[in-house]
Amino acid sequence: MRMTRLFLRTLRDDPADAEVPSHKLLVRAGYVRRVAPGIYSWLPLGLKVLGKVEAIVREEMDAMGAQEVRFPALLPREPYEATGRWDDYGPNLFRLKDRKGNDMLLGPTHEELFTLTVKDLYSSYKDLPLSIYQIQTKYRDEARPRAGILRGREFIMKDSYSFDVDDAGLVASYQAHRDAYVRIFDRLGFEYVIVHATSGAMGGSASEEFLAVSETGEDTFVRSPGGYAANVEAVTTVVPYAIAFEGTPAAHAEQTPDTPTIDTLVDHLNAAFPRDDRPWQASDTLKNVLVILRHPDGTREPLAIGLPGDREVDAKRLEAQVAPAEIEPFEANDFAAHPGLVKGYIGPGALGAESATGIRYLTDPRVVEGSRWVTGADVQGSHVIDLVAGRDFTADGTIEAAEVRAGDPAPDGSGPLELARGIEMGHIFQLGRKYAEALDLRVLDENGKLVTVTMGSYGVGVSRAVAAVAEYAHDDAGLVWPKELAPFDVHLIVAGKDETVVAGAEQVYDELIGAGFDVLFDDRLGKTSPGVKFKDAELIGVPTIVVVGKGFVDGVVEVKDRATGEREDVALADLLAKLRD
Amino acid sequence: MRMTRLFLRTLRDDPADAEVPSHKLLVRAGYVRRVAPGIYSWLPLGLKVLGKVEAIVREEMDAMGAQEVRFPALLPREPYEATGRWDDYGPNLFRLKDRKGNDMLLGPTHEELFTLTVKDLYSSYKDLPLSIYQIQTKYRDEARPRAGILRGREFIMKDSYSFDVDDAGLVASYQAHRDAYVRIFDRLGFEYVIVHATSGAMGGSASEEFLAVSETGEDTFVRSPGGYAANVEAVTTVVPYAIAFEGTPAAHAEQTPDTPTIDTLVDHLNAAFPRDDRPWQASDTLKNVLVILRHPDGTREPLAIGLPGDREVDAKRLEAQVAPAEIEPFEANDFAAHPGLVKGYIGPGALGAESATGIRYLTDPRVVEGSRWVTGADVQGSHVIDLVAGRDFTADGTIEAAEVRAGDPAPDGSGPLELARGIEMGHIFQLGRKYAEALDLRVLDENGKLVTVTMGSYGVGVSRAVAAVAEYAHDDAGLVWPKELAPFDVHLIVAGKDETVVAGAEQVYDELIGAGFDVLFDDRLGKTSPGVKFKDAELIGVPTIVVVGKGFVDGVVEVKDRATGEREDVALADLLAKLRD
Repeated sequence: MRMTRLFLRTLRDDPADAEVPSHKLLVRAGYVRRVAPGIYSWLPLGLKVLGKVEAIVREEMDAMGAQEVRFPALLPREPYEATGRWDDYGPNLFRLKDRKGNDMLLGPTHEELFTLTVKDLYSSYKDLPLSIYQIQTKYRDEARPRAGILRGREFIMKDSYSFDVDDAGLVASYQAHRDAYVRIFDRLGFEYVIVHATSGAMGGSASEEFLAVSETGEDTFVRSPGGYAANVEAVTTVVPYAIAFEGTPAAHAEQTPDTPTIDTLVDHLNAAFPRDDRPWQASDTLKNVLVILRHPDGTREPLAIGLPGDREVDAKRLEAQVAPAEIEPFEANDFAAHPGLVKGYIGPGALGAESATGIRYLTDPRVVEGSRWVTGADVQGSHVIDLVAGRDFTADGTIEAAEVRAGDPAPDGSGPLELARGIEMGHIFQLGRKYAEALDLRVLDENGKLVTVTMGSYGVGVSRAVAAVAEYAHDDAGLVWPKELAPFDVHLIVAGKDETVVAGAEQVYDELIGAGFDVLFDDRLGKTSPGVKFKDAELIGVPTIVVVGKGFVDGVVEVKDRATGEREDVALADLLAKLRD
Repeated sequence: MRMTRLFLRTLRDDPADAEVPSHKLLVRAGYVRRVAPGIYSWLPLGLKVLGKVEAIVREEMDAMGAQEVRFPALLPREPYEATGRWDDYGPNLFRLKDRKGNDMLLGPTHEELFTLTVKDLYSSYKDLPLSIYQIQTKYRDEARPRAGILRGREFIMKDSYSFDVDDAGLVASYQAHRDAYVRIFDRLGFEYVIVHATSGAMGGSASEEFLAVSETGEDTFVRSPGGYAANVEAVTTVVPYAIAFEGTPAAHAEQTPDTPTIDTLVDHLNAAFPRDDRPWQASDTLKNVLVILRHPDGTREPLAIGLPGDREVDAKRLEAQVAPAEIEPFEANDFAAHPGLVKGYIGPGALGAESATGIRYLTDPRVVEGSRWVTGADVQGSHVIDLVAGRDFTADGTIEAAEVRAGDPAPDGSGPLELARGIEMGHIFQLGRKYAEALDLRVLDENGKLVTVTMGSYGVGVSRAVAAVAEYAHDDAGLVWPKELAPFDVHLIVAGKDETVVAGAEQVYDELIGAGFDVLFDDRLGKTSPGVKFKDAELIGVPTIVVVGKGFVDGVVEVKDRATGEREDVALADLLAKLRD
């Protein structure tokens, strides 16, 4: 491919809306172009990389014995209605009506349709196990599409589904997918971790995520020295033992004027009510946070979360717990609707299903029986001290919504957690029988009895992988593609307008193509300087750059490794051998 | 691939909703499955054939120098608003709103987006000519989706767009596409014709269609012995010369009771008002047909069409003329709104922009000046005789809406037309500057002056091609794929449960795979009889069927040609050579 023909325009400046390196570079280097928020076009360079990712995924899925199919993206409402997901997806689902007024949707994931098709074709345990997959365009109306193709509203996913007659079969199918995913992500070449995850709206018993480790990732995960790894949403708190509270002083309300925040409260406590043993700390206080849950049917439910004052509510952990409900802020009119709530001084007394407000009250698992707290007295400017859980108040339950912090203990006892960020690249679920039950997928077992099929569901973000690789493989000058994904094998530059040099570059171009290399030939003459060509080559990121310049008359060209920056003069006679190396 | 593993279930009976052979067979043989009206899933066999069609299209597009890109299917309203197509597409467009209330659509074709992207990247005549294409999923909310994947609401299209700085460039780009299409359709292997076509809502000056010749096709086309070929919508009527009408008797109204149809009128004329020279014929009468045009903005406009009584209005020809308006019947309440119209006896006197009804009146091109007609007198039970066009009435214009009939003269004088039916497989358009003007795509020419780019647009129905090939290549027993498109090279059958035969079939399977053949191995044992296997093989339509049966002990297998039905016993040692043949 000649640069003078390639549909490409590199940009000097980062796009205004780009924050992460992959987004900046993929747009600047002409791989993708934005059409609408979260909706992108693939230009020739980008489509070539995307095709290579697809090929890797396809090879590994075929190798594990999964069969490729392709389902439509435009789907009827009924199957999603049957499983409840028509509503559960809330505003994340693109819904539309056809000319006859039928409700339709753009598929966010295809459990329902695969289940129905297997039901249509199969009826016996002899037909199972079955794993079928597709590489197909998916749609989710994200509230915050971001980072270019990293989190789009239209994107390409590999989704597969396994069907087994029993639990052991599901475990085996799940493991086969997990192994295939390891091979896929090994080949894609970025650093990744496999973490425990929550199943969210998908349902099912067990799930794991494959995260590309990246500072710009949206997902926070934890890992311990002993090998525990989990998505932050899936981390469970190590619950302290209950504490005996006989002899604990009775709770007593005290004046704490102007202490609407934890910091001001702690300062005031240390000044006005100093402890004998140590200063008061934020972790001695019980903070009560109010939010509104918006359920898929549109109803709004207030929820109070009680947690140690040194921790914030983690929005994603909370969302994972309350899904499919979404979180909205508790606003002034909500306070107005509950006059029992004294802003800044809310205590357990005003909370709970049995309280006057009736607001459901869930506490952090650390709020164990016998733990002592300073918390709001439900009176302006006043807090209660020595309020004991299980003696003075009882919540409606616990919730895993507090932030996880570096140093927190791993739930399996494998040591202190460290936090890192990642990009969700794959998610594998043991769905179990949720979808098969809802859609009545049953087969005859060996004894001629109808049994409900058990399913797994497995996704890889294919278009997202292009961004994840770019996020991993770049430097200040541009993209640095690994060989298996690069849009071309060789980026050939003619450096000079001298007739011999130009003819030489053309000759090298022909030779490389003849030898089977896929070559991008920067054949621009005119006003394009060698410097501009070098800059474009670095930006585009083909692994090997060959420069035909003045040395050509002496039978020498320059070969540059894009990743290491190493340059080497290579005799023309040795060029093919060098490139094959 | 082993049949016992393949995600497949063949059906004995035709699906209830299937009318054409490709639909019946592709469903029965397990290539596709219906998800909703006009929306299908591709099962493994179907996806393999689809992939081979895609590969042919991709190879030929790449070979002509077009570059592949991939645009989104979910698109913002604004570009389509700018060209008027947001409205012009009427109910054929799938429209939806995103969570923020923005209007979006599912792309029916991508002129707007390609235009905007070229505008984004390119600015000079030096960047042109450019041809870019995609193989991508398209959406049209067809009023009558039919025939399985032959006319779907979600389908796969190859669409390409050419960009040139001047008209000569457009003609060259158009010709290059036309040549590539000839290569594509030659390789797909069905009989096709290239016909003149109308441009419809697409706009532009010239267009041609590639039609697969098929009795079940929706499109009617004509061809002449001299080589003229056109879609019936594009046929122009050979207009007779005007006729001198001096001396023609004056028009006279006559009683013609109970003659609401042309047949009853002709009978009555011959009985009550016999001609001297010959009997009255239907072609002596002028029939006036009323319809309602529904414009994209929802307004309804009555239209009267006057045409010789021996011809019907052809709905598709009429639609092509009035697009983007759609045709609706002229109903009782429309008659009520125009009391001047006497049903069954409507004449030119009650029609035309200047008449009392004000209804626009267009006549067939055969209604030339001086032609004499019998037509309605706008009085119940009365017709006018000797009404002369241009003397006694003048229409508001002409319209090409009358049916074309076998034997009509070709417009280029190349002889009488014959009619045939076809499936629209490709459509190529010289769009000109319509889209570039609407979206302001201009480049600097050689003189540094901004000029508007001129465009072409070119489509191939990729998923439809699978059905078109099936429509062409089948017999009573099932599908008969050409080699280049078949899902497998060889369909291997084990005919018998004898241990030696089974082991022999396994051995042949391994050998064929080792030799690079893509083999579907019907390894079913159990209750599946050889007869069932043969039937399935014929239904599935792989070109070569190899049967391992009793002869295996003598070193012989049977090789059957699916297309010709020829069977041959082949020595095992010769099998690979025979198959390579």
